[in-house]
Amino acid sequence: MNGAKFPNPIYLVNPKYPGEELLGYKFYGSVSSIPDEIPVDLAIVAVRAHITPSIIEELGKKGVPFAHIFSSGFSELDSELDKKGKKLEQELIKVASKYGVRILGPNCMGVIVPKSKLTFIMSFRAMQQAFSENNENDSESLEGLEDFGDLTNAGQVAFISQSGGIAFNHGMLAQSLGYNFSKVVSFGNQIDLDLVDFLRYFKDDPETKIISMYIENIKKDGNEFVRLLKETTVKKPVIIWKGGIGQTGHQAVMSHTGGLAGNYKMWQSMAEQTGVILVNNFKELTDMLQTIVTYPTPRTLGTVVLSMSGGTAVESTDEVERNGLKMPLLSKELTQKIEEFIPEINSNLKNPLEFGGKNSLDHTVQILGMLAEEPQFSSIIIATSPEYLIFGRGNTLDSYIKKISNAIPPNSGTLLMCTYNTTDMFEQGIKMNLEFRSKSLPNGFVAYRSTAAAAKACYRWWKYGKYLENRSNN
Amino acid sequence: MNGAKFPNPIYLVNPKYPGEELLGYKFYGSVSSIPDEIPVDLAIVAVRAHITPSIIEELGKKGVPFAHIFSSGFSELDSELDKKGKKLEQELIKVASKYGVRILGPNCMGVIVPKSKLTFIMSFRAMQQAFSENNENDSESLEGLEDFGDLTNAGQVAFISQSGGIAFNHGMLAQSLGYNFSKVVSFGNQIDLDLVDFLRYFKDDPETKIISMYIENIKKDGNEFVRLLKETTVKKPVIIWKGGIGQTGHQAVMSHTGGLAGNYKMWQSMAEQTGVILVNNFKELTDMLQTIVTYPTPRTLGTVVLSMSGGTAVESTDEVERNGLKMPLLSKELTQKIEEFIPEINSNLKNPLEFGGKNSLDHTVQILGMLAEEPQFSSIIIATSPEYLIFGRGNTLDSYIKKISNAIPPNSGTLLMCTYNTTDMFEQGIKMNLEFRSKSLPNGFVAYRSTAAAAKACYRWWKYGKYLENRSNN
Repeated sequence: MNGAKFPNPIYLVNPKYPGEELLGYKFYGSVSSIPDEIPVDLAIVAVRAHITPSIIEELGKKGVPFAHIFSSGFSELDSELDKKGKKLEQELIKVASKYGVRILGPNCMGVIVPKSKLTFIMSFRAMQQAFSENNENDSESLEGLEDFGDLTNAGQVAFISQSGGIAFNHGMLAQSLGYNFSKVVSFGNQIDLDLVDFLRYFKDDPETKIISMYIENIKKDGNEFVRLLKETTVKKPVIIWKGGIGQTGHQAVMSHTGGLAGNYKMWQSMAEQTGVILVNNFKELTDMLQTIVTYPTPRTLGTVVLSMSGGTAVESTDEVERNGLKMPLLSKELTQKIEEFIPEINSNLKNPLEFGGKNSLDHTVQILGMLAEEPQFSSIIIATSPEYLIFGRGNTLDSYIKKISNAIPPNSGTLLMCTYNTTDMFEQGIKMNLEFRSKSLPNGFVAYRSTAAAAKACYRWWKYGKYLENRSNN
Repeated sequence: MNGAKFPNPIYLVNPKYPGEELLGYKFYGSVSSIPDEIPVDLAIVAVRAHITPSIIEELGKKGVPFAHIFSSGFSELDSELDKKGKKLEQELIKVASKYGVRILGPNCMGVIVPKSKLTFIMSFRAMQQAFSENNENDSESLEGLEDFGDLTNAGQVAFISQSGGIAFNHGMLAQSLGYNFSKVVSFGNQIDLDLVDFLRYFKDDPETKIISMYIENIKKDGNEFVRLLKETTVKKPVIIWKGGIGQTGHQAVMSHTGGLAGNYKMWQSMAEQTGVILVNNFKELTDMLQTIVTYPTPRTLGTVVLSMSGGTAVESTDEVERNGLKMPLLSKELTQKIEEFIPEINSNLKNPLEFGGKNSLDHTVQILGMLAEEPQFSSIIIATSPEYLIFGRGNTLDSYIKKISNAIPPNSGTLLMCTYNTTDMFEQGIKMNLEFRSKSLPNGFVAYRSTAAAAKACYRWWKYGKYLENRSNN
């Protein structure tokens, strides 16, 4: 985690090692023995579950306002017969309210606040300690893990996650996907600070332009949640990935964070009412975020597909239509214009547009500008992995990217969406696709793993635009 | 294409270069000037479309029995007003029948027959020549392309493809996916030899154990096709990817190969009747083939999901159920056994099974064997990228693979399915996943790109087993 070093004091507390040091930080034997000069803003509590109430008691006495309880072993482990975890949570709440300590968790990864350089690193370090007891290689493996993402680059995306693992994955990957976070919160069992609190915060957070969430259940006040969502979506887009929608998934959710999950149809109708963008899994969530940070909402559902081979054109068209977009025809004028310079063989001047051969890239670039001027197309999908277009003729991936992104007139409002389809299946292809993907967002387009992914994200983004339009008309 | 050099004579024909050599092969000025000592079995015709009838005439006079017409520019370019391509095809058929020449194509890549070392290489070379006229770098780029797959390893999978591009992609990728081809046929406009001919051939081909197809349309005799499919599916599984299912896709198909596509519902009901396994895109096709070459048909839909984190457990469960599998509970006996050695924290002894922490891999291995003995589970899905299980404790990817594949008793009939989910999004993860995937099939399991992909393939393979069971009962 380069550059993630927290600039303010950190106090380590462990009764076993008072006076010893770790990574340059001193261990204290108890919370009460921490010096009082600088008030402690946040405590990260990573002890066995049954000890947590006594730690909160100590923190309360010390005047620490916030405690992130990393520990698990609470209501998420309860069965119908045994409610031990629930009782422990009630005990926590009781002692916390006595001192006014606000609790995040338990059973969560806590917060990332890039501008304060506050990351999950503390949790990593705790894990590192736990793992390294038996094996000296472990710290090395964890060093590797830390390099996956520099979470201290502040961005515009908030992520509120009930799952610590998913918050961790998203944190690691976001930068390689081309966006950064304003803040990330993993809230776990939400016994005190809950989803609704965080939504309320992010609604008005000026650093957050897009709110994304992974939710398994709502503990309280669904009406307040819906009301807040309605207020929020007119200000900024809200993406919700609802986990636990099937019968067993529902059970898994109840087990995982000890709450009620609600019926999926209810979530769908809530999304319709509030303009929330509902997604089904992690990849759809990241596709949606890449789409939103890159494009304006599409004016219409009309899209045109460019492909280098007939088979891919057919496959892409199926995927586009299966996911809700429309494929209007080219205007007669444009068809005539294109016919003047595209070789007749293997080209198809309907929609999908299909042409291969040695001038493919030049043709693609010329055609992109013309397509962007056709009012029936709000988006253009290049359904071809870059190597098909750049091979030969001295093109590189960089020149390809520059050429296609410059081909669309600025402020045309037309989305240029690229895909890399089948070639993510072998090493050379994957390497080029990774580079293509990482360079796409800075150049104003998204490289999606499939046409289906592009079409799905485009449709959902259009639907949000439509929702806003209806809201402002009513 | 290492090792793909065709061992028998090849005669190049081009009136421009008689007497010259290319890659050690001599150019002849015309078909008639080819020496008569060794009869020519197959001609690959790559000339402008309007010349093809005269070439077939020459081939007929020479007594060449088969012509693969690589050229495009036939009925696939026709519009409603202009049927020039159709007329050219009729002309071809007329001259071919006169001499008894059988035609493959036009507008196709031809055949791959690994045991005869006959590959698409001739088409590559033709492309190479076309591209290299203007740029010397091109031959290098194509050399790269040729290394993607060694198509001369004979396998058990036949692939019949209406699209040349898809046949090309599949040919390049299959080996890296872990299976090999008995034969590949790209049949294009099928003006003579058609889909039905190839199905009839592969039904009885002893070298083919599994038939896979990419189809856009059937030119003639749908009844014969259905009858043949019924005869074939009791002998070997048949996978069909039907391209062009939407409204525009339908148009794209008509354009691409100049035929009628049929209604998708018709294809679905045909699949129900015949036991054909229908898939929707290229990745689903390759997932299905990997599944079939690796596993017996699952006994039941029951599956158990193992995961390292709660969020992934919930996501995987949703994907499993969304794709038709069921998740029965563990037996009480097994639950008790597992509780003896799994640490209580963060584990969930229902289904999905969720446990993380420092002994994850050892626990996984111990539990796999026990799960394989539970009759309610026909498949086990490890929904965790390998790096989560191997980090620390001296494990490598190889030792991980050996451990998990040995954990399932041989002949238990239980499918061990692995996924690599989110980590195919950054370079380190992708590299490990590629290695994991390439090593999975030789070790008796498939590493799928997502839990959804694993569940979908498992469900379809179960359905085929069920179809066979019903057929043998009736």
